Amino acid sequence: MTTTVGTTTTTFDLGPAGALACRECGHQIPLAAEFACAECFGPLEVAYNFGTVRREDIEAGPRSIWRYRRLLPVPSDVDDHPNTQPGCTRLVRADRLAAALGVKRLWVKDDTGNPTHSFKDRVVAVALAAARTLGFTVLACPSTGNLANAVAAAAARAGWQSVVLIPSSLEKAKVLTTAVYDGALIAVDGNYDDVNRLATELAAEHEDWAFVNVNVRPYYAEGSKTLGFEVAEQLGWRLPDQVVVPIASGSQLTKVDKAFRELGELGLVEPAPYRVFGAQATGCSPVSAAFKAGHDVVTPVRPDTIARSLAIGAPADGPYVLDAVQRTGGAVEDVTDDEVVEAIRLLARTEGIFAETAGGVTVATAKKLIANGQLDPDAETVLLITGDGLKTLDAVADRVGPRATVPPQTAAVREALRG
Amino acid sequence: MTTTVGTTTTTFDLGPAGALACRECGHQIPLAAEFACAECFGPLEVAYNFGTVRREDIEAGPRSIWRYRRLLPVPSDVDDHPNTQPGCTRLVRADRLAAALGVKRLWVKDDTGNPTHSFKDRVVAVALAAARTLGFTVLACPSTGNLANAVAAAAARAGWQSVVLIPSSLEKAKVLTTAVYDGALIAVDGNYDDVNRLATELAAEHEDWAFVNVNVRPYYAEGSKTLGFEVAEQLGWRLPDQVVVPIASGSQLTKVDKAFRELGELGLVEPAPYRVFGAQATGCSPVSAAFKAGHDVVTPVRPDTIARSLAIGAPADGPYVLDAVQRTGGAVEDVTDDEVVEAIRLLARTEGIFAETAGGVTVATAKKLIANGQLDPDAETVLLITGDGLKTLDAVADRVGPRATVPPQTAAVREALRG
Repeated sequence: MTTTVGTTTTTFDLGPAGALACRECGHQIPLAAEFACAECFGPLEVAYNFGTVRREDIEAGPRSIWRYRRLLPVPSDVDDHPNTQPGCTRLVRADRLAAALGVKRLWVKDDTGNPTHSFKDRVVAVALAAARTLGFTVLACPSTGNLANAVAAAAARAGWQSVVLIPSSLEKAKVLTTAVYDGALIAVDGNYDDVNRLATELAAEHEDWAFVNVNVRPYYAEGSKTLGFEVAEQLGWRLPDQVVVPIASGSQLTKVDKAFRELGELGLVEPAPYRVFGAQATGCSPVSAAFKAGHDVVTPVRPDTIARSLAIGAPADGPYVLDAVQRTGGAVEDVTDDEVVEAIRLLARTEGIFAETAGGVTVATAKKLIANGQLDPDAETVLLITGDGLKTLDAVADRVGPRATVPPQTAAVREALRG
Repeated sequence: MTTTVGTTTTTFDLGPAGALACRECGHQIPLAAEFACAECFGPLEVAYNFGTVRREDIEAGPRSIWRYRRLLPVPSDVDDHPNTQPGCTRLVRADRLAAALGVKRLWVKDDTGNPTHSFKDRVVAVALAAARTLGFTVLACPSTGNLANAVAAAAARAGWQSVVLIPSSLEKAKVLTTAVYDGALIAVDGNYDDVNRLATELAAEHEDWAFVNVNVRPYYAEGSKTLGFEVAEQLGWRLPDQVVVPIASGSQLTKVDKAFRELGELGLVEPAPYRVFGAQATGCSPVSAAFKAGHDVVTPVRPDTIARSLAIGAPADGPYVLDAVQRTGGAVEDVTDDEVVEAIRLLARTEGIFAETAGGVTVATAKKLIANGQLDPDAETVLLITGDGLKTLDAVADRVGPRATVPPQTAAVREALRG
């Protein structure tokens, strides 16, 4: 729902963003680097005064998420500052995957085409733009992968200093893909919880450090709306019947839902019913467990899954995911690591798209939801593929390889193909 | 130059493509899966009857290379068949890199955003479209990297069988990123020359196999024109003053030049002088050596460089590269592997773009051409970054890493940042 801004005033120009509003008690404060309500400790969310937004204005915009700047907490001149220009990734009509899954009309939103090959470029770009306006000078995050890449790259592009905190046990390939951008990459002796706690402490101590997913989180999170905006625009300004979204913190799912509602409320699409489905790995499925038990709170778990980019045991937006799924008539389901790997291979084999483990979770969950009758095979469905298989090669390393090794003779190749 | 088709007739609908013409003797034959002139053994190239092509028609097209279908050897309904939808990648204004290099106006064409993260998706998509029209049913190639990924992915998406031949010594990561698409990946005991020779033999024996870079090469090569088309369109329908292009076979450079000429001849841009520069790694620099020696033929070399995607010791289009560079007033230069790695890091640090070794060759060569006065620092320049750093992590593995490893305490982080 579009929250109308009350009497609060602000000195920051963040476009249509007018205030921060508590999701729990509705209390509003002026735009600032705050993430928790001073009244009730609920999470703060951006509230807007959109005014009139027309399709033509969006279509005339740049080929990046900034075409939706009138719907985001960023200044109107956002594209005048260097940024990574994420978004406008492919929406692929997936007929071969549809046939394999037994559904009629299926689309894959392939966010591997972003600058650092995951949807994190979207949220980080919005966080950077808001942080610049709010007066920050350093971009920071705790991360084990995609977010680290995105923050280091965005800061490099903008000429900002970055501080990226990773567990010291992180695999070398993931270290390299962040370190190459030459920000301050700090390895921390501890697990990811230790790194996260350290980030919160550092955010409190350094008023010029914008931790994208901590002190500027309300702005950062809005970046995920652009996935929903793009899907609708790429479908010809209409909403799909069903969308399947992976759940880590749960923020992406709630923001895609928010995007669909805003488009309807603003008259940019014909308001129509849609159903939102959440996907988790069984090894980290607290939201799926809560959904199945009919709970409206989420009990934290200790993650144990190959889908590390989704391995958040205490998802901050879990209750809001349950709200969105229940309100729209969707569901949350979870799948085993074996199902994840098979789904990565299925997507690659049928559509030529190599997803990271999170993408495998989405595809495998869609398959399971179809099998158990919760996802309507006759309705149009969109799957969000949010990260790249090149970053999680280990998941498939033991499952795929050459069909044969042969001497350099044509007869040997023919023989191998017959075999 | 736009070659006008003579009296030859053809039964294939490949859009504006009218014939194949020999680059050496001009002899024309009807459109077919041929790559060498029967008269003089010169290479065949697609000849067109363009008719009228308007900017509005292109701008109204899809957000992929198929917006340029009226300028490519593909049928008018090309986008009705499943393909990977490559192209429309970012053209990034690179002010921070410009400052580091000492030039005024610099752009980076970032082709890492393609479906399998290199420009090969462009050429393979055109090869697939032409191969379908010409009656092939299998998509094939010999490759050590980017091309293997692109062929396997495109075939999977189209529902075609693929046959990809690789040397059996290829690193596991490169094997995985092709094998995941589940085509027929065949490891060949031999070096890349053995694999290439095997491909040519197999192409002769199997009339339904389209080896993208062998028997359908004239169509495949045209795909590189889309890099030139996009740069011009993204600059607001005008040509840059200077462009720096990496050289492997040399085809990409000649096709970017061809694209710029076609745009001028068709009135899609104001015809204006531009200069084309070629970039090679010193460890495989036969074209640079010929340019510097003033030769018009290229003497083959045995490659020894980390820039493996450019390591073609006998570049088929070498003489045509020399033609294009000399005609436009450009140059060819080469850089050491150390310079390549430093340039990868420079591009990442200044613009947040992580390029593969070929991209390092382009940036390092631009730097050298500026230093030696061949590239005009006051003229607008475009650098082509054609592949992704995620695929050549080894190049930077020993050079980058965390700034420090610390205990999970804020004081330790502050201390590390001071150090």
